[in-house]
Amino acid sequence: MIIDCHGHYTTAPKQLEEWRKRQIAALEDAKQVPSKGTLGISDDEIRASLEGAQLKQQRERGTDVTIFSPRAMGMSHHIGNETTSRHWSEHCNEMIHRVCGLYPENFVGVCQLPQSPGVPPKNCIPELERCVRDFGFIGCNLNPDTSGGYWKDPPLTDKWWYPLYEKLVELEVPAMVHVSASCNPAFHGTGAHYINGDTTAFMQFITADLFKDFPTLKFIIPHGGGAVPYHWGRYRGLAQDMKRPPLKDLLMHNVFFDTCVYHQPGIDLLLKVIPADNILFASEMVGAVKGVDPETGFNYDDTKRYIDSATGLGKEDKEKIFHGNAHRVYKRLAKRTASAAR
Amino acid sequence: MIIDCHGHYTTAPKQLEEWRKRQIAALEDAKQVPSKGTLGISDDEIRASLEGAQLKQQRERGTDVTIFSPRAMGMSHHIGNETTSRHWSEHCNEMIHRVCGLYPENFVGVCQLPQSPGVPPKNCIPELERCVRDFGFIGCNLNPDTSGGYWKDPPLTDKWWYPLYEKLVELEVPAMVHVSASCNPAFHGTGAHYINGDTTAFMQFITADLFKDFPTLKFIIPHGGGAVPYHWGRYRGLAQDMKRPPLKDLLMHNVFFDTCVYHQPGIDLLLKVIPADNILFASEMVGAVKGVDPETGFNYDDTKRYIDSATGLGKEDKEKIFHGNAHRVYKRLAKRTASAAR
Repeated sequence: MIIDCHGHYTTAPKQLEEWRKRQIAALEDAKQVPSKGTLGISDDEIRASLEGAQLKQQRERGTDVTIFSPRAMGMSHHIGNETTSRHWSEHCNEMIHRVCGLYPENFVGVCQLPQSPGVPPKNCIPELERCVRDFGFIGCNLNPDTSGGYWKDPPLTDKWWYPLYEKLVELEVPAMVHVSASCNPAFHGTGAHYINGDTTAFMQFITADLFKDFPTLKFIIPHGGGAVPYHWGRYRGLAQDMKRPPLKDLLMHNVFFDTCVYHQPGIDLLLKVIPADNILFASEMVGAVKGVDPETGFNYDDTKRYIDSATGLGKEDKEKIFHGNAHRVYKRLAKRTASAAR
Repeated sequence: MIIDCHGHYTTAPKQLEEWRKRQIAALEDAKQVPSKGTLGISDDEIRASLEGAQLKQQRERGTDVTIFSPRAMGMSHHIGNETTSRHWSEHCNEMIHRVCGLYPENFVGVCQLPQSPGVPPKNCIPELERCVRDFGFIGCNLNPDTSGGYWKDPPLTDKWWYPLYEKLVELEVPAMVHVSASCNPAFHGTGAHYINGDTTAFMQFITADLFKDFPTLKFIIPHGGGAVPYHWGRYRGLAQDMKRPPLKDLLMHNVFFDTCVYHQPGIDLLLKVIPADNILFASEMVGAVKGVDPETGFNYDDTKRYIDSATGLGKEDKEKIFHGNAHRVYKRLAKRTASAAR
């Protein structure tokens, strides 16, 4: 079984984006009362949006299940206020729920949180609970920078986030740390802000005792951990200079990296430096990089090929990366798989 | 000959920091007129600050020359105003000039620029010219984020920076893109802001035609290029999706990476992915990571060991990395070496 832990619904029917545009336009008009309304998307439209895209690529690439969440760039928590974000997140999550209902073998849901600048993360708990308890979602995406590239939220180790973490622990769901669109002209979205977000989060985790307070809290850092594995010696050395415990004791029971690294040498480094127990297979398709690599003739984001081609990766470690770790990190996925097997 | 292209004067006599503290304190007192004043540092104090540190490590590690600039964290362009930054930069650069005068075989100067938030970069030209023409410096450090972690400057491809670039080209000096201290609690300085700055700058260069406008302008991206080599496939793919030219045509005549990557697998990846023509040896000692790696028994930042241990690196490429490229990128270093040889 091959589980892709990082997929976004980037191909949703156009009504979703149109709804969002109307919502944003209404923010400019003080007379309009925010309302959630409806999307008017049919099941057939959802099927059509997936059949030629994610489902086709699952079949072609030989992956089985995608852990699926709303489009990361679309979260754009910086837009509007708490109500804006709540209505939008509810719609996006309901779309994921419908996808998972139509294709229960292919997709498992992860939710967007209705975060909003300056609003305590604990306010996201009702939507998180709805998605986990009512929809059967198994995780959430957590944006460490609701400002969209100006980084005004407290670090992820700050007590500001603790009520949400308590709920994550209680529900046994992990969070993928994932920024959204950048409205800072200095940061290209997928080329800078995404990768910086990953690197930033990891370094935040080094500096504090978050995982003493939450020993079972789990984070996935996407995009291969940003810059972290490439600079693994730097991070080991910084922790050491700061008199922090070795990284393996400090955070490797709690922090995991995905395999969204789009060339063989990058994947080889990841596999060499990071313990197999901390790596989860992922491709982020259909996502940030859509083209075919002229050097290989295959899609850049066809990451399964890199794992398959990695030399020195034993069968046991490969199974951990392809599905074992996902079942360990996403506890509710394990329960779901066990229940399906009965 | 082994040239370390990235060293900062992190061990300067305490009077330098004391001067800075007085300068910052005076900013709070509206009655005080900013004045440059003097530092009161003797040549013997400078010698003492280097003998047991950078010079000792040069000897122990077998490197010859360090391209030497003021402490990066200390630049802190976010503090005060243009005059604050000018006085401080002048002092810092004069210290480097004295170091190079005392040890002309061991150090070559690179200057800090008196950047300041909201102030056009062209205002740095007088100090750049003084350092290059009067002091014989061969490059500068350019901070892409004078706000110290809030990223309020225009991208490096913006015309805001062009007058400074024109002068860099005229003087035939490259710029190392190097952020300074982070005052944003989200970003750890050396663990997040530094690496993010590198990644961000590279992605900025991808998105615009800066090097069409300045075909001979040269940038060094330090810390092994941030996250870039690890995600080389991502950057090739993003450029391709954006219909930009291949990276090698777009920017590899103008952008270079140093070797400040503090473990063997990271250096191996760098050497595998990035052409040898684009890599300059560097350690950033005495710098961000000072400890001894328990896995090797040597300093994390003793990067020469990683280069020496890299398999498959030919003699010719190794010479490019150790000195050939430095002479090509720092044109004034080549002139200096040629003149010393006469």
